[in-house]
Amino acid sequence: MATTSAYTRLAARFRKAGQIGDALSVLHWDMATMMPAGGAEARAEQVATLKALAHELIAAPEMPDLLAAAEGETLGPWERANLAEMRRDWVHSAALPADLVEALARAESACEMVWREARPAADFQMVLPSLSNLLGLVRQVAAAKAEALGVSAYDALLDQYEPQGRAAEIDGVFADLEAFLPGFLARALEHQAGRPAPRLPDGPFPAATQKALGIEFMTTLGFDFAHGRLDTSHHPFCGGIPDDVRITTRFDEADFTSALLGVLHETGHALYDFGLPAEPWRSQPVGKARGMVIHESQSLLIEMQACRSAEFQRWAAPRLKAAFGGDGPEWEAENLYRQGVRVKPGFIRVNADEVTYPAHVIIRYRLERALIEGRMDLADLPDAWAEGYRRLLGLGVPDHRQGCLQDIHWFGGAWGYFPTYTLGAMAAAQFFDAARRADPDLLPAIGEGDFAPLLAWLRPNVHAKASSISTREILVAATGRPLDAEVFKAHLERRYLG
Amino acid sequence: MATTSAYTRLAARFRKAGQIGDALSVLHWDMATMMPAGGAEARAEQVATLKALAHELIAAPEMPDLLAAAEGETLGPWERANLAEMRRDWVHSAALPADLVEALARAESACEMVWREARPAADFQMVLPSLSNLLGLVRQVAAAKAEALGVSAYDALLDQYEPQGRAAEIDGVFADLEAFLPGFLARALEHQAGRPAPRLPDGPFPAATQKALGIEFMTTLGFDFAHGRLDTSHHPFCGGIPDDVRITTRFDEADFTSALLGVLHETGHALYDFGLPAEPWRSQPVGKARGMVIHESQSLLIEMQACRSAEFQRWAAPRLKAAFGGDGPEWEAENLYRQGVRVKPGFIRVNADEVTYPAHVIIRYRLERALIEGRMDLADLPDAWAEGYRRLLGLGVPDHRQGCLQDIHWFGGAWGYFPTYTLGAMAAAQFFDAARRADPDLLPAIGEGDFAPLLAWLRPNVHAKASSISTREILVAATGRPLDAEVFKAHLERRYLG
Repeated sequence: MATTSAYTRLAARFRKAGQIGDALSVLHWDMATMMPAGGAEARAEQVATLKALAHELIAAPEMPDLLAAAEGETLGPWERANLAEMRRDWVHSAALPADLVEALARAESACEMVWREARPAADFQMVLPSLSNLLGLVRQVAAAKAEALGVSAYDALLDQYEPQGRAAEIDGVFADLEAFLPGFLARALEHQAGRPAPRLPDGPFPAATQKALGIEFMTTLGFDFAHGRLDTSHHPFCGGIPDDVRITTRFDEADFTSALLGVLHETGHALYDFGLPAEPWRSQPVGKARGMVIHESQSLLIEMQACRSAEFQRWAAPRLKAAFGGDGPEWEAENLYRQGVRVKPGFIRVNADEVTYPAHVIIRYRLERALIEGRMDLADLPDAWAEGYRRLLGLGVPDHRQGCLQDIHWFGGAWGYFPTYTLGAMAAAQFFDAARRADPDLLPAIGEGDFAPLLAWLRPNVHAKASSISTREILVAATGRPLDAEVFKAHLERRYLG
Repeated sequence: MATTSAYTRLAARFRKAGQIGDALSVLHWDMATMMPAGGAEARAEQVATLKALAHELIAAPEMPDLLAAAEGETLGPWERANLAEMRRDWVHSAALPADLVEALARAESACEMVWREARPAADFQMVLPSLSNLLGLVRQVAAAKAEALGVSAYDALLDQYEPQGRAAEIDGVFADLEAFLPGFLARALEHQAGRPAPRLPDGPFPAATQKALGIEFMTTLGFDFAHGRLDTSHHPFCGGIPDDVRITTRFDEADFTSALLGVLHETGHALYDFGLPAEPWRSQPVGKARGMVIHESQSLLIEMQACRSAEFQRWAAPRLKAAFGGDGPEWEAENLYRQGVRVKPGFIRVNADEVTYPAHVIIRYRLERALIEGRMDLADLPDAWAEGYRRLLGLGVPDHRQGCLQDIHWFGGAWGYFPTYTLGAMAAAQFFDAARRADPDLLPAIGEGDFAPLLAWLRPNVHAKASSISTREILVAATGRPLDAEVFKAHLERRYLG
């Protein structure tokens, strides 16, 4: 009997851990869409147990020997890349003791449940004790991973969402944007004031009609309903697994745009998941999405670059008008386009336009870094938040609901995640620019509701790469250069000053 | 530091295995209600992996020593009962090698997926290869567990669903029913012919109205929507966990009774789950439902005993009439009652009346025993099925869809399950009889839509016992005697000849 190679044994182990992760992904979707409130405690226990089992598999004592043995074996390039990802996963897992993994999972679930009540009540004090407990554990995680990775505490957290992402680079990018955006915003608002104000069509827009339209648009974009669903949740997200992608949105019967833009955004995430390589890589670390910068680039490429274009609005406008039985000039593509690219500073990140969005992210990034690095007290968060909005957007935050309680991230344990939104927006501009250069008919095709040329470019250049190369390498191979704020700025100038 | 007792260590281990089982239960519900078809293969892998992990925990080599050590410790009565259930679980788990557990899980998923296509196509040959593969594995399971338990192969399978259930007892019960029922059926049909035929109200009955009514009826019965949901699936079932009970039904817009009776039946299961003891027992073997005989007794007690009563129909009739905007004598309680207790031999088990239902079960029981014991070839199943229906119900089966493909059980790996339906029907009659004797106001209260007196009896006498005593002991403690066909027969005589 032939000896099973170390690589083969590792692949079987990661496959098993990956299947636990897949089950967790369905359980998480269920929690956000279907689970009655009374199921929360039991679900938190299930999740903690499954996370501990997956951790046990990857952090096992025999892993260093297995990894070292496999690294000495003859492997193909994807196997080699897979092995590098395995080592990466192992470093992250082995850095944490099992009891910290379980305690963190429980604290995340508990804090998220309190936040669900504290947010509508705009009551930061209500959630402060559980958030404080959670932050304490997150800081333990950061310290342990920082030591294992040889990076700072914040970078250790960021690395979970964006492998090799580093605060030093983000600082440079954000400083650049911070210098550029205030002046640009003033010019964009001035330019906008010189055009007729868009008029949002009058509702109500029945949720069922919005959902049917969402499904029609998803189908047009290439969403495969044999391998996915659209449901409703308080916060839109894309979950599930590549064979069974679950996206969600929420319906506002007074304004159809929020649900629809949510659907388009999440469909961008879904298309990336659908396009990840098939077996034998699907169940392996190398077959997973590269990280949150690329993931967010795909959702923003679809939502912001493709679907807020004048071309797409020309295709969408008559369909929207027909679906809602609309009438009048507010249903013209030109009006809907102007509605879609309207710039207006506001309190809520998820409603922000492209121009002001980075300010929301920069505020959060600086606050979470200060909290992780122990430079700020959690009790001071609301004041510091208000100060950030005053300084960067000139707005006085009216309450905590529209302030520091608005996002689920910190309350669910996702610290070090926010910067990926803006890096993703920049990458989206860069990918879309490269795709249009490669195929000048791509945008006109989108104007006909034909996303095949866009997908034909994204599949090999982004989706199929999965984690076989780094974010930077994907960008360089696909666009000729690493992440570059100039393309994003040029996009903003074209759209908002053009 | 105090030494952790063997019992405490076992409890922690079973808690963990139980949480994996809870996660599996949600995944199973999702598969039947939400999952797109394209997610089936990946889901099958997740399920196989989680089942293997749970098996690994319970079949672990250190378990015999742990169990023996705990059996020597000083324990309270529920702890002692819990330990007995732990040993029982261990015997069942340790009997099977890990690779058989995984192979079985995969074969079950695969066969069920093929069955989903073969059933509407009425094509037994289509599913024969995967069913044959599955049956081969089930027979391996039966043989391994038979040896471990010291019982026959069939009893070993039955024991999974009904602990201590034995074919020898079932043979006696079924022989008795088989002697009683044909004559009784003839008398019931004759009696029925002497009364006006019930008239089913004319539809259509919108699914949304049926669902709203289902929710109203569930609420009346005591279903707690903070801890559960109602959804749609091809086969009604009760899944989830006691803190988050997921029941399903299916809607026929031409006939509201099938969905509603499904809802009432599954609510009976749900009430049992809700009534199981809280922590520390909820997560332990002793806190689980006793077995499928008691479980089915609770669904049939609600559906058949309580809700097909003339009393309940008097409460329900005006609500049904109002909900569907009905008019005319067919909405009278008397007519709806006669509709609910109408006897009519047919091909489909789940649509069968109380009188002919046991025949459906007896046919399946004899066939599955012959197949498990190797006395019959799987290819001969359709003919043997037809022969059974000819002999016991005098019906010629028109096609395999209405024949041996109708039930999911065998195709999903549930062999040795069917007899529990009829044993459950008998236990239901016995429990309801005892409850009414204990509280003569119980049935009148149901006529007012008040299920509190019934629940007040079921909670301590059945639900709260969980697995602390055997099925037989629950019956004796609650009704004064073990399972007794005479009570069931008396019920049938009262309802169908009275």
